[in-house]
Amino acid sequence: LRSGLPEVIYAAGKSTQQVLEIFRALAVSGVDVLATRVAAEAAAAILAEHPSAQHHELALTVSLRRSETARRGHIAVVCAGTSDLPVAEEAAVTAETFGAEVTRLYDVGVAGVHRLLAVREQLDAADVVIVCAGMEGALPSVVGGLVGVPVIAVPTSVGYGASFGGVTALLGMLNSCSPNVTVVNIDNGFGAAYTATMIARAGER
Amino acid sequence: LRSGLPEVIYAAGKSTQQVLEIFRALAVSGVDVLATRVAAEAAAAILAEHPSAQHHELALTVSLRRSETARRGHIAVVCAGTSDLPVAEEAAVTAETFGAEVTRLYDVGVAGVHRLLAVREQLDAADVVIVCAGMEGALPSVVGGLVGVPVIAVPTSVGYGASFGGVTALLGMLNSCSPNVTVVNIDNGFGAAYTATMIARAGER
Amino acid sequence: LRSGLPEVIYAAGKSTQQVLEIFRALAVSGVDVLATRVAAEAAAAILAEHPSAQHHELALTVSLRRSETARRGHIAVVCAGTSDLPVAEEAAVTAETFGAEVTRLYDVGVAGVHRLLAVREQLDAADVVIVCAGMEGALPSVVGGLVGVPVIAVPTSVGYGASFGGVTALLGMLNSCSPNVTVVNIDNGFGAAYTATMIARAGER
Amino acid sequence: LRSGLPEVIYAAGKSTQQVLEIFRALAVSGVDVLATRVAAEAAAAILAEHPSAQHHELALTVSLRRSETARRGHIAVVCAGTSDLPVAEEAAVTAETFGAEVTRLYDVGVAGVHRLLAVREQLDAADVVIVCAGMEGALPSVVGGLVGVPVIAVPTSVGYGASFGGVTALLGMLNSCSPNVTVVNIDNGFGAAYTATMIARAGER
Amino acid sequence: LRSGLPEVIYAAGKSTQQVLEIFRALAVSGVDVLATRVAAEAAAAILAEHPSAQHHELALTVSLRRSETARRGHIAVVCAGTSDLPVAEEAAVTAETFGAEVTRLYDVGVAGVHRLLAVREQLDAADVVIVCAGMEGALPSVVGGLVGVPVIAVPTSVGYGASFGGVTALLGMLNSCSPNVTVVNIDNGFGAAYTATMIARAGER
Amino acid sequence: LRSGLPEVIYAAGKSTQQVLEIFRALAVSGVDVLATRVAAEAAAAILAEHPSAQHHELALTVSLRRSETARRGHIAVVCAGTSDLPVAEEAAVTAETFGAEVTRLYDVGVAGVHRLLAVREQLDAADVVIVCAGMEGALPSVVGGLVGVPVIAVPTSVGYGASFGGVTALLGMLNSCSPNVTVVNIDNGFGAAYTATMIARAGER
Amino acid sequence: LRSGLPEVIYAAGKSTQQVLEIFRALAVSGVDVLATRVAAEAAAAILAEHPSAQHHELALTVSLRRSETARRGHIAVVCAGTSDLPVAEEAAVTAETFGAEVTRLYDVGVAGVHRLLAVREQLDAADVVIVCAGMEGALPSVVGGLVGVPVIAVPTSVGYGASFGGVTALLGMLNSCSPNVTVVNIDNGFGAAYTATMIARAGER
Amino acid sequence: LRSGLPEVIYAAGKSTQQVLEIFRALAVSGVDVLATRVAAEAAAAILAEHPSAQHHELALTVSLRRSETARRGHIAVVCAGTSDLPVAEEAAVTAETFGAEVTRLYDVGVAGVHRLLAVREQLDAADVVIVCAGMEGALPSVVGGLVGVPVIAVPTSVGYGASFGGVTALLGMLNSCSPNVTVVNIDNGFGAAYTATMIARAGER
Ligand SMILES: Nc1ncnc2c1ncn2[C@@H]1O[C@H](COP(=O)(O)O)[C@@H](O)[C@H]1O
Ligand SMILES: Nc1ncnc2c1ncn2[C@@H]1O[C@H](COP(=O)(O)O)[C@@H](O)[C@H]1O
Ligand SMILES: Nc1ncnc2c1ncn2[C@@H]1O[C@H](COP(=O)(O)O)[C@@H](O)[C@H]1O
Ligand SMILES: Nc1ncnc2c1ncn2[C@@H]1O[C@H](COP(=O)(O)O)[C@@H](O)[C@H]1O
Ligand SMILES: [Mg+2]
Ligand SMILES: [Mg+2]
Ligand SMILES: [Mg+2]
Ligand SMILES: [Mg+2]
Ligand SMILES: [Mg+2]
Ligand SMILES: [Mg+2]
Ligand SMILES: [Mg+2]
Ligand SMILES: [Mg+2]
Repeated sequence: LRSGLPEVIYAAGKSTQQVLEIFRALAVSGVDVLATRVAAEAAAAILAEHPSAQHHELALTVSLRRSETARRGHIAVVCAGTSDLPVAEEAAVTAETFGAEVTRLYDVGVAGVHRLLAVREQLDAADVVIVCAGMEGALPSVVGGLVGVPVIAVPTSVGYGASFGGVTALLGMLNSCSPNVTVVNIDNGFGAAYTATMIARAGER
Repeated sequence: LRSGLPEVIYAAGKSTQQVLEIFRALAVSGVDVLATRVAAEAAAAILAEHPSAQHHELALTVSLRRSETARRGHIAVVCAGTSDLPVAEEAAVTAETFGAEVTRLYDVGVAGVHRLLAVREQLDAADVVIVCAGMEGALPSVVGGLVGVPVIAVPTSVGYGASFGGVTALLGMLNSCSPNVTVVNIDNGFGAAYTATMIARAGER
Repeated sequence: LRSGLPEVIYAAGKSTQQVLEIFRALAVSGVDVLATRVAAEAAAAILAEHPSAQHHELALTVSLRRSETARRGHIAVVCAGTSDLPVAEEAAVTAETFGAEVTRLYDVGVAGVHRLLAVREQLDAADVVIVCAGMEGALPSVVGGLVGVPVIAVPTSVGYGASFGGVTALLGMLNSCSPNVTVVNIDNGFGAAYTATMIARAGER
Repeated sequence: LRSGLPEVIYAAGKSTQQVLEIFRALAVSGVDVLATRVAAEAAAAILAEHPSAQHHELALTVSLRRSETARRGHIAVVCAGTSDLPVAEEAAVTAETFGAEVTRLYDVGVAGVHRLLAVREQLDAADVVIVCAGMEGALPSVVGGLVGVPVIAVPTSVGYGASFGGVTALLGMLNSCSPNVTVVNIDNGFGAAYTATMIARAGER
Repeated sequence: LRSGLPEVIYAAGKSTQQVLEIFRALAVSGVDVLATRVAAEAAAAILAEHPSAQHHELALTVSLRRSETARRGHIAVVCAGTSDLPVAEEAAVTAETFGAEVTRLYDVGVAGVHRLLAVREQLDAADVVIVCAGMEGALPSVVGGLVGVPVIAVPTSVGYGASFGGVTALLGMLNSCSPNVTVVNIDNGFGAAYTATMIARAGER
Repeated sequence: LRSGLPEVIYAAGKSTQQVLEIFRALAVSGVDVLATRVAAEAAAAILAEHPSAQHHELALTVSLRRSETARRGHIAVVCAGTSDLPVAEEAAVTAETFGAEVTRLYDVGVAGVHRLLAVREQLDAADVVIVCAGMEGALPSVVGGLVGVPVIAVPTSVGYGASFGGVTALLGMLNSCSPNVTVVNIDNGFGAAYTATMIARAGER
Repeated sequence: LRSGLPEVIYAAGKSTQQVLEIFRALAVSGVDVLATRVAAEAAAAILAEHPSAQHHELALTVSLRRSETARRGHIAVVCAGTSDLPVAEEAAVTAETFGAEVTRLYDVGVAGVHRLLAVREQLDAADVVIVCAGMEGALPSVVGGLVGVPVIAVPTSVGYGASFGGVTALLGMLNSCSPNVTVVNIDNGFGAAYTATMIARAGER
Repeated sequence: LRSGLPEVIYAAGKSTQQVLEIFRALAVSGVDVLATRVAAEAAAAILAEHPSAQHHELALTVSLRRSETARRGHIAVVCAGTSDLPVAEEAAVTAETFGAEVTRLYDVGVAGVHRLLAVREQLDAADVVIVCAGMEGALPSVVGGLVGVPVIAVPTSVGYGASFGGVTALLGMLNSCSPNVTVVNIDNGFGAAYTATMIARAGER
């Protein structure tokens, strides 16, 4: 069922040597490859060996795509600003690597709802929306109330004090008063995008 | 966008009188109505007034559907047994009220994977799978590894001691090693089904 | 400095007899009296003895005001609906008993920002805004972004599962991205109103 | 409404280059600028480019004020000693940058109430009091009982063991028996001062 | 070493019959007996059988003392009011049953330090001070700063919301900035008094 | 009873010098020695002095066995992959040093139950199974349902976000629906193996 | 593999009717049956229908054994007193129903080690020891240091305040300094006994 | 009352320069001085200036005593081994600096009660016992059951996984079944000793 999808490497806690070897083995087999949480050194090593691979520094990903097939499904990735970008980009790059069309909406926050209303048209065009937010994690609820499609909420570990490394955002999202919101682990941009591409693809069938 | 969907009443913490009045107001307007977390007394009062409404005792729901339109999208609802049934049924009845075809798979657990493998065909037919589980909450991971569609995990407050009213199941599901798993609040069968019908309907387009 | 303010009785955990005796002692001394968290039986006993006292059933308060002085300062009390009403009313009645003008805005939520924008004028007229919210507790952030005055956030114990009796709302409010938000204890409508009247009165000086 | 107030940069987690660029863009537009949580290197870079900016080393702030307008409102900032100073100074400098008169009372603690009683006159002169405290976070309650104005409590991450990085102080403050106490996030001197200047300014109107 | 001390029965969770039997067995052996957490019914049963026993309703204790020996050591028991009385009385009655002289100071709180300063002489006369407090649990720190003897802090389960059944008070006491404060379990008036009598008796040697 | 067993050194938090001295003292006495959590430097120092000792780099152990006695009892050590290996190897090496026969099954996970079913024969041959798992910690439940012997579950600190350094895995294991599962502390491969060898040896009697 | 073992019903949260039906179905099939957490009413109903079944009131169990086979393996069940008895008895009755010889040692506690030393011989005779303890949960460590066999620790929900319904005992047991201690869920006497019989039987082979 | 006691500096989080200046100021005034949590560099700086001061490396203290007065009161300091030594030594050195006679019993643990019984005579000679323990924190309960004097329990941050930096030990101690146990903050050897000297001195009066 899932043939044709990229193989994924979670590089966190693996040595450069380990990441390189797994990447090589997958690349040789001809499939598309996506590595997430790749440190700078490991990324450099992969690119030296696979010049056609793409390194996204902010997303901490390296991806190797063999054929540019037509994109299927539209995903909007939403966040409030600078600090949430690494997680939002992990989601966006993953979704693109898995073949979806991605719209980035990176400057909308709950303390300024007018910016959110200003991008409503772009939100409405999406088959599914990924919302990344730290601190109080309130953005998915507001977005969820505006759109008629599933919202996948990604709590980020952004904040200090009683943000508890993303736990406050996570709890807020689980208690969302918008019923179209489901939630993934803190900072898990990859998982959100993986599920979002499944949903968006169905919407394109 | 969402026109045509049932209106929903969350009856928990409302008096019989309050529930009855809200139900009446919605029914009069001609839309389909779904009330969740309805106590026995309130359910009886609604049915006395709206004889065509349906009361699901286990799901604690009362639903009023005006026209039986063709069902769109297939949803499998999975759980391990007796104790999780109220949550699973809240999900199943909600999904049916919102127009989806529902397959109930209510006797599969992680401590007996063969029963799970025995229903694989039914799982494969679904556009999206809802998995309700208490205690260690491990079932969504195993189901997620078997299917190629989104899995919505619903932690239930079933268990004792260190199950902490569903928190252990919730945490387990958020840490699922299957990337197609997203999570809703403890016992939130309604929210899981709401999102699932959105996904399943897209799959039918 | 605080002379002229009502004396307050916190009736929770006190017997009808105890509440009655404290109320009587204060009333005799001629001051205004406010009792909060008053059970129905204790309220009836007070009213039997002090017919001019006022019982607010939803707010669980009984108040005895001797002279209707001109109201000083405007306070808006905001919440999303039925379940938060007891806390919102405890705040509103306290503020009125302490001499403030109160505007109740009780049907605005984060999942429907248009209702919030619709009451913007009333929000702008306030010297201080009290926002009561349960579940994800996101409303104070959105309100805080709309107004130029202090917002006092009151988490309510409304919700289930991972709302943890108001803790999720409390944490969300403490992490508000709106810098004009400060927070009080869960369900503490009284404390929010006490501080709000201090602020609003200053604004009227 | 809020025109005339400084623009604020939260520098934590931003690179020197990023902070410098945001600072420059705001400075060019002619507004007052306040940057908080500024590392030594970023502060040096800003001062090299904006010689009239002021760096407060303890507060970790850099501020650029264009015109010295008359100060409006009196704020007392209170803490118990050396360890709480960075948070207290973030509050004090923020309040000054936003145009308030600030009195620093930095050597008063709950284990020596006589020092607190000795500064009572200075406390009484304030329109609002900010109290920063770590460990058991008891100081706001004692101060709250002494003054007739709002107290904004800032828990600090000072302490060890069961102080849990400020959580114990935060919880203590939320449970304050003084009803004029509201609370902000751990170490959030900025937020406390932002709200305090709003309150103090109203008191001066 | 501990001969001559009363035997103690912890009656919580025991049936009237069980408590009565244990009490009888100890009484027969001639020792002094103290039963704590005794429900009304069990207390009545004991008194019917042992008319010379004393029932303290507020403290939930029943004690049987055979000989009134001279009291040794002075213990002050301090709390802020009505709600903490059951715990304070459990401590006071226990200390008296174990032979200490007890001074009750039951109307002093951190939000009104002057009442505390007013009883300073009585505090100074004690060999050890027991302080019971709920909510923010700040009282032991203030008392600890006033006296030159050990302070035993008893957190009480008084409060609501973020008081977490006494946990906030407990944490505050453990982080006391007064170094002469040690702490016992929530509501453990008995344990505080047991240790206090040991300390006070030594002071009398 | 336990004579003949190796003496164990827990090297974490000890200096190289301290570890070396304890190791030497035990080695001199003639017993077998096992040191766990040994840093690279300390391991090198031990091997320089005791050339016949064995260093397992992944397990962070150094062991010194004097006589190769026949192995008693079969233990299977199971985990899902790379990240859990250090804990699994601490368990495996400990079990071998204590004289058991160990089968390593290091590539089985809950998201791919077929790999687990593929090793069923090897699981069935064991007297006891040790299962190490991080994240959702679901593997022991699935294994427990497949085997008829005790399963000792070791939560590992592998994961991020809501895995809370192994707490989520720990809680999941404690709530296992397989009744033959008992649990040890996070990352405690040593303790699991210690108990497992006791059980396996009994099975061989 | 596990043929011959009793079938088990977990009756908590099931109606009398449900428990009775499941019990009947199993009894008819000829196997031994054990029902745990059986309320008084359900127990009476079962006994009315199955006069040869045995009801243990303290353990809350009903068991039906068909043939008295020779007992295999010795298990000691240890606890400190009255409050832990229901859990200890659930363990003891389960172990007996599964065919083990059980020694009850119900009056040993950490605050009186001499009573523990007095039963050392009985402890030494066991193939495995189950230790049930609430409050600080220290007993398994002390027992673990005395015996050379596996100790299964069962935290009980006995205690108040900071015992947190058994969590403190659970954590203490997981951190036991005796390496032969493994742990089950709070109050899970059944699970401890299930694993213990597996271990004890092996010891008898 | 407390005249004659050493002045104390808590050096954690202070710069070498700051510590040195405070130390100098106190030394000049002629009192005895104790500095705790002193880093190596700061200790060296103090000793260079005050050659008669004493540096205890393990305790991380520097103390300056002017006159060796006769010691009053006996304190036993008990712990289980290497890892708890820094906390135990902070307690022991503090007690000695405050004028008490200290007996160190540093090799007794709950998993080997015989070592504890072997030092019973030394325990019996103490006026008060300080017990430092990490992991399950069970030692104070066992010691408390053996002695007839107050036991002050100090949880240490020793352990890993579910020891949570000393929280498990802290909770265990608060739930001690020995009623003569009171507790201080995690790693707070200083506070334990401060209170212990007060108690011991009283015993000597
Ligand atoms: N609903 C409330 N929540 C928190 N504090 C309250 C509330 N109502 C009254 N109080 C406070 O409780 C004090 C009276 O407490 P008491 O003396 O126990 O009746 C008042 O002075 C208020 O500060
Ligand atoms: N120390 C601080 N703590 C919390 N929030 C702050 C702090 N300093 C600035 N802020 C907020 O951060 C906003 C700027 O964030 P940014 O756009 O990320 O630089 C300001 O408008 C303030 O509301
Ligand atoms: N990795 C480990 N985790 C937990 N406990 C261990 C570990 N390795 C050794 N131990 C225990 O630590 C004891 C030795 O501790 P120590 O005397 O501090 O070296 C041994 O007897 C073991 O019971
Ligand atoms: N190790 C310690 N842990 C907790 N409190 C301490 C410690 N050492 C000193 N103190 C307290 O800290 C106070 C001095 O704090 P400071 O003025 O910040 O140096 C002393 O009076 C002691 O009460
Ligand atoms: Mg939802
Ligand atoms: Mg996922
Ligand atoms: Mg704020
Ligand atoms: Mg307040
Ligand atoms: Mg202390
Ligand atoms: Mg189990
Ligand atoms: Mg163990
Ligand atoms: Mg105690």
